[in-house]
Amino acid sequence: MLGMIQDYFQNRNLSMLLDFYEMTMANGFFLSGRADIIAYFDMYYRKVPDAGGYVIMAGVEQLIDYLENLRFTQEDLDYLQKRGLNADFLRYLREFRFACDVWAVPEGTPIFPGEPIVTVRGPVVQAQMLETMLLLTINHQSLIATKANRVARAAEGRAVMEFGSRRAQGYDAAILGARAAYIGGCVGSACALSDRLFGVPALGTMAHSWVQLFDSELEAFCVYARHYPENCTLLVDTYNTLQSGVPNAIEAFRRELLPRGFRPQGIRIDSGDIAYLSIRARKLLDEAGFADCKIVASNSLDEYIIRDMLMQGARVDLFGVGERLITAATNPVLGGVYKLSALEQEGRVVPKIKLSENVTKVTTPCVKKAWRLFDRETGKAMADLITLADEVLDDTQPYELFDPDYTWKRKTITNYLAKPLLEPLFRGGLCVTERRALPKIRDYCAEQVGTLWDEVLRFENPHSYYVDLSQALWDEKHRLIAESRK
Amino acid sequence: MLGMIQDYFQNRNLSMLLDFYEMTMANGFFLSGRADIIAYFDMYYRKVPDAGGYVIMAGVEQLIDYLENLRFTQEDLDYLQKRGLNADFLRYLREFRFACDVWAVPEGTPIFPGEPIVTVRGPVVQAQMLETMLLLTINHQSLIATKANRVARAAEGRAVMEFGSRRAQGYDAAILGARAAYIGGCVGSACALSDRLFGVPALGTMAHSWVQLFDSELEAFCVYARHYPENCTLLVDTYNTLQSGVPNAIEAFRRELLPRGFRPQGIRIDSGDIAYLSIRARKLLDEAGFADCKIVASNSLDEYIIRDMLMQGARVDLFGVGERLITAATNPVLGGVYKLSALEQEGRVVPKIKLSENVTKVTTPCVKKAWRLFDRETGKAMADLITLADEVLDDTQPYELFDPDYTWKRKTITNYLAKPLLEPLFRGGLCVTERRALPKIRDYCAEQVGTLWDEVLRFENPHSYYVDLSQALWDEKHRLIAESRK
Repeated sequence: MLGMIQDYFQNRNLSMLLDFYEMTMANGFFLSGRADIIAYFDMYYRKVPDAGGYVIMAGVEQLIDYLENLRFTQEDLDYLQKRGLNADFLRYLREFRFACDVWAVPEGTPIFPGEPIVTVRGPVVQAQMLETMLLLTINHQSLIATKANRVARAAEGRAVMEFGSRRAQGYDAAILGARAAYIGGCVGSACALSDRLFGVPALGTMAHSWVQLFDSELEAFCVYARHYPENCTLLVDTYNTLQSGVPNAIEAFRRELLPRGFRPQGIRIDSGDIAYLSIRARKLLDEAGFADCKIVASNSLDEYIIRDMLMQGARVDLFGVGERLITAATNPVLGGVYKLSALEQEGRVVPKIKLSENVTKVTTPCVKKAWRLFDRETGKAMADLITLADEVLDDTQPYELFDPDYTWKRKTITNYLAKPLLEPLFRGGLCVTERRALPKIRDYCAEQVGTLWDEVLRFENPHSYYVDLSQALWDEKHRLIAESRK
Repeated sequence: MLGMIQDYFQNRNLSMLLDFYEMTMANGFFLSGRADIIAYFDMYYRKVPDAGGYVIMAGVEQLIDYLENLRFTQEDLDYLQKRGLNADFLRYLREFRFACDVWAVPEGTPIFPGEPIVTVRGPVVQAQMLETMLLLTINHQSLIATKANRVARAAEGRAVMEFGSRRAQGYDAAILGARAAYIGGCVGSACALSDRLFGVPALGTMAHSWVQLFDSELEAFCVYARHYPENCTLLVDTYNTLQSGVPNAIEAFRRELLPRGFRPQGIRIDSGDIAYLSIRARKLLDEAGFADCKIVASNSLDEYIIRDMLMQGARVDLFGVGERLITAATNPVLGGVYKLSALEQEGRVVPKIKLSENVTKVTTPCVKKAWRLFDRETGKAMADLITLADEVLDDTQPYELFDPDYTWKRKTITNYLAKPLLEPLFRGGLCVTERRALPKIRDYCAEQVGTLWDEVLRFENPHSYYVDLSQALWDEKHRLIAESRK
C-alpha cells in the first residue's frame, strides 16, 4: 500500500507547481552569488478557520512524497529557458539534488496559531522554491482534517462518511480531501480512488437514477436487495420518503432478505427535513421489526446542522457529509505562510524578522524549537512554548509562562511534561522518518484531540490555547523590532 | 501545446475517481441484465454562487481528456475484485470502450440555473459511472471561472492576476483553477505549471524573504533591479511601505535602471490599507518622475474589496488576488447535479422524472434541447429556452415565452435569433469536437458576458435571467408529476 501511495506523485511532475516568483528569486540568488547561503524558513498559520480552537495537522506524507520526487524534467527546463532564466541556474536545476533538513509536526496533531509546524533549513536557492508546494499541501489537508474533526465531533459518536467528491475543488481535493477527512475522524469516504490509493474505507450503494431505471421503486429495491443482500442500504426519497420509500424498503427487506437469512443494513434519506423524516422512518422500521436497520442521512450537512438535528431528536445513525466538508465551505481557506526566520552567515546564525503595518503579520525570528506542555496529572495539554533552538527546557523545574502580547499575564507551572512538537523528516535531503499507516494517524489524532480541554474544543468562541514564547526568544524578537524601526 | 494538455491526464489514472456507488450500481445493472439500456443524463446546476446572476461554463477540455483516457488498469480491477464485484462485470471493465454520446455548452459561455449544460446518452452502465468525474470537473472550473469573472469586472478594466496556488484546495485546484481564472478574465496567474501546461501567462517577482536576505532593503532592491532590469517590480512593504519601501524602490530605480536606459515596471504592496498606501505611493512615484511605474496590490482581495477600494480612490493598476479567488471563498461550491432524464425502451424514448420534498430538486424529464434567444437588434441575450429534442424552433415566427413556475407571466417575442446552447463532444465514444486555444476561450467568455444585460451582471440582487420551458416540455413534465403522485 505504501508503494501505491508514492505512485500518486511518481507518475506526475509537479515540480513546476510553484509561484513564478520562486524561480525569479532562485535565479536571482544564483546570479548574485547567494544561492548557497543557508536559510531557515518556518511554516505557521495565523487564524483558526471557523473561529475554532485548533487545526489538525495533515498532508505531511504528501509533502514527503513531493520532496522525495523533486526533480526538473526537460520540459520544465525548456519552459524556464524560454522564460529567460540563466543557463548556469538551469544546469543547477538539471542536476538538482534536494539537500535540505526538514522538520514537521506529525499528522493528526492539533496545532495552534503562530507556532512553527514545518521548518526547513538549507541552501536558500532550494529552501525558497519549496514554498508553494509545501504550503499548498499542508494548508489543504489540514483545512479538511480540521473541518472533518469538527463534523465528527458534532455527530457525538455517530459515524460520519465523506461524500463530497463531486463538489470538491478538483481531483486532488477529492482524493486527498478524503484522506484528510479520514484523519480528522470520518469513518470513510464515498471516493473509490482514495480507498484504492490510501485505504480510506469506501462505501456507497445507489443514486436516485437506480430507482428511476426500474418500472417501480419496489422493483428497484428488490433487485438491489437480491444482488447485495449483505450490505443492503436503500435510498428512499426518490418519490416520497414516508408514503412510498420506507414502506417499499420494508417490503423489499421482507421479500428478498429475510427468506435468505439476511438483515437489512439501512435506508438513506437525501432530501426533506431530515430530523422529522428520520424520526418517522425510525418508527416505521421499528414497527416492521427492523430496529437494527440503520438510518443514513445526507443533504448539505455540516457540524452546525448536525448539532441542531441531534438537538431536535433526529434518529440518524450515519451522516453522509458532502460539499460542506470537502470544501470546508463555511471557511474554505487555511492561511499558512512560509517565512524566513534566520540565515547562517560566516558560521553564525543571524535571526531575521519581517515587520508589517498589520501587527499579526510580524514574524517571529530565530531558529526555534516548539514544545507542548502536558499536565502530568491530567494528561491535558496546558500550553505550547516556543524557545530558541539551543534553550534547554528542564521539565523537572517550575517554568514561568507569559503572554507574548500582554506580558503582565504570567503563570508558573509545575508538574508538567514537555514534548517537542516537530520531528525530523529530512536530513541533508534524505528522508529520515518512517511512514505511518493511515488508521494509526487517525487514532493518534483522536487521542491528541482528547488531550485538549473542552473549552478549546467549543465550536463557537473557544478558549484561546496558549502559545507562548520563552523570555529569551521574546527578548530577541523585540530587540530586532526595535533595531528595524530605527 | 495541446499535446501537453493531454499529458495532464495520460500519465494519471483517475478512472476510479468515482463515488463507490457508481460501481455498485454499474455492477447491479450488469447483474440484472440492464447494462445495455440506453439512458440519458443531464448535468445542470440549481443556484448561482454568491447570489450572482450567472455562472461561466468551464472544464470541458478536461472532461474530454478524461473521457478519451477512460480505461481500467489492472490495479483498478484488482481493487474492484477485492471489493466483491462480479467477474463478468470486471471482464467488461477490462475491455472497456467508451461508447456514449456527449453534448456540452462550450467553455466560456454564461450558463443559468436549471438548464442542461452537459447531456450524456449511452448504455446506462457507462453513462452512470461518469457522474462523479463529470460533475467534479465542470463544477470546479465553472466555480472558479465565475468568481474570476466577478473579480475582473470589479477591477473595471484594471488587470487581475490569480495569485492563490498556496491556498488552493490541492494541486489540481491550483493548476486548473489558474486555467479557469484565466478563462473568467484574469490576465494570468502566478502558477508556473499552469503556464507550462496551458499557456496561462505566469508572472511574479519577489517575496519578503528576498528583501530579508540582504543586509538592507535598498541593497535587495538594487540587486534585483540589476538582474531584472526589464521587468522590475519591487515589493515595498517588508519594513515600512511609505517611509522605507517606496523611497528605497525609487532610489534603486535611479541607481540601477535609469543609467542603463530602463524604466521600472512596478511596486507591489501586500499589507496595510491598500487604498491609503497606494494613493500616497502614487504621489511619491509621480514626484520622483516615475508616473509610468505601476502599482500592484495584493492581500486578501476579492470583488467586494476591490470595488470598495476603487470607490475610495485607490491608485492600483494590477490586483493580485489569491485565496479568495482560487477557493471562491465567499461561496466555495457550485452544486451541479447529474440526473437521469429518459430511457430508450423497445425503440421508444421513455421520459423519467425524480420528485422530491424539496421542489427545487424535482428534475426536468425528457430528451431536451436548450436554446439561447438573442435580440436581433441589440445582440443581447433575452432568455434561454428548453424544448423537447424534436421540437422545431422557427425564429422567423413570434414565440410566446412563459415562466415555468408562474405560468401566467407570459411574453411574446419577435425579431430574435435562436442558437443551440450545447454542441456535440462525443459521438459513439469518439470525440467529434476541436479543442480551442485558451485565449480564444477567454475572448469568447468576455464577448458572451457582454451579451448579458447589466441587470443580470449586478453583484448583488441581479435580475433573474429567464430559463423557460416550451409548452410541450412543460406539459410533459407536469403529466409525469401527476402520474408519479398517483
